[in-house]
Amino acid sequence: MKVGVLFSGGKDSALAALLLSPFAQIELVTASFGIMPNDAATLAQILGFRHVMISMEKELAMTSIDTMIKDGYPNRGLNQVHKTALERAAKSYRFVADGTRRDDKAPLLTLREARSFEDRMDIDYIRPLLGYGRRTIDGLAAELLEIIYGECISFDYEVELRQLMESSYGHETVNRVFPRRHLQSKVTGRKIANFRAAKA
Amino acid sequence: MKVGVLFSGGKDSALAALLLSPFAQIELVTASFGIMPNDAATLAQILGFRHVMISMEKELAMTSIDTMIKDGYPNRGLNQVHKTALERAAKSYRFVADGTRRDDKAPLLTLREARSFEDRMDIDYIRPLLGYGRRTIDGLAAELLEIIYGECISFDYEVELRQLMESSYGHETVNRVFPRRHLQSKVTGRKIANFRAAKA
Repeated sequence: MKVGVLFSGGKDSALAALLLSPFAQIELVTASFGIMPNDAATLAQILGFRHVMISMEKELAMTSIDTMIKDGYPNRGLNQVHKTALERAAKSYRFVADGTRRDDKAPLLTLREARSFEDRMDIDYIRPLLGYGRRTIDGLAAELLEIIYGECISFDYEVELRQLMESSYGHETVNRVFPRRHLQSKVTGRKIANFRAAKA
Repeated sequence: MKVGVLFSGGKDSALAALLLSPFAQIELVTASFGIMPNDAATLAQILGFRHVMISMEKELAMTSIDTMIKDGYPNRGLNQVHKTALERAAKSYRFVADGTRRDDKAPLLTLREARSFEDRMDIDYIRPLLGYGRRTIDGLAAELLEIIYGECISFDYEVELRQLMESSYGHETVNRVFPRRHLQSKVTGRKIANFRAAKA
């Protein structure tokens, strides 16, 4: 089976793709508003996977930002964008995957939303990390991937939304809606030696 | 990492083990009340994994059966037994996995129970199939495994509980508590040709 895996360049989506890779043909799919330059294609090449960009409209970004400002927190707005990214991918792939995890808050589809997504688009939606806790994922990622961590190293759609919110509504609004700056991760390589599928 | 995967001999637990196998050393763990003979060790050998039996006390079976009869349906009683099986496995393995799926009703730990299990036992609990729907799992299993389906082919703890309920409380009680006989699966081989990890 060929699976389109939503890929941000970060540790979780890269690990999701790796876990599927012995059993499926993987294509990494990066959804972007085209607001910032994006190095996902380079990272995908480093990981050894084919890569596709999907563009999302700036109107969706503004709607999602409005939702975030109204809510005072980003979760619902992020989910709107993530669902759109999944639906775009579902137009090109019969199997669609992402890196959402058991301990994620957002973006994360509920069980009902996941089933509805599958039924509506007639695709299979796979979340390889949904049955993994944070500690297991961090351990596996460290074993299989070269990763750097930092505050401003990623260029996924969340960073684009933050950037767009800043330029439209100012720094104070961003700080109110995204209270804590959390450490981002970026995958810079694959530890082939620890990858049994590659050794076998 | 070495992972103890709860193994019933059926399709789901076998697939869970296969999905983990490129990334971990797998040991299959079968929990049994010792009421019926069990061919899990043979099936594990066919799959190429080391196998360990864990015995559970008949008192637990009786308690779980009492719960089922009181409830009029098996879910809570099955969960009691499954949690005990997981906890027994957690005494021998730092990583414990099972084949529970997104669309399962029971046995299935809630998010809160899964986290509590990890914290209490200081282990990592992995559910490789939790992010997979029924259709995806059936497709993957058909691609990777030789499977037979039937009504009386499995000898996992659920079948033992049913058997014990029948001998203690009679056929009518079993039919009331387990209303529908569902098709069991048993893994009889591995389709190596479709397993990319083996080909690589």
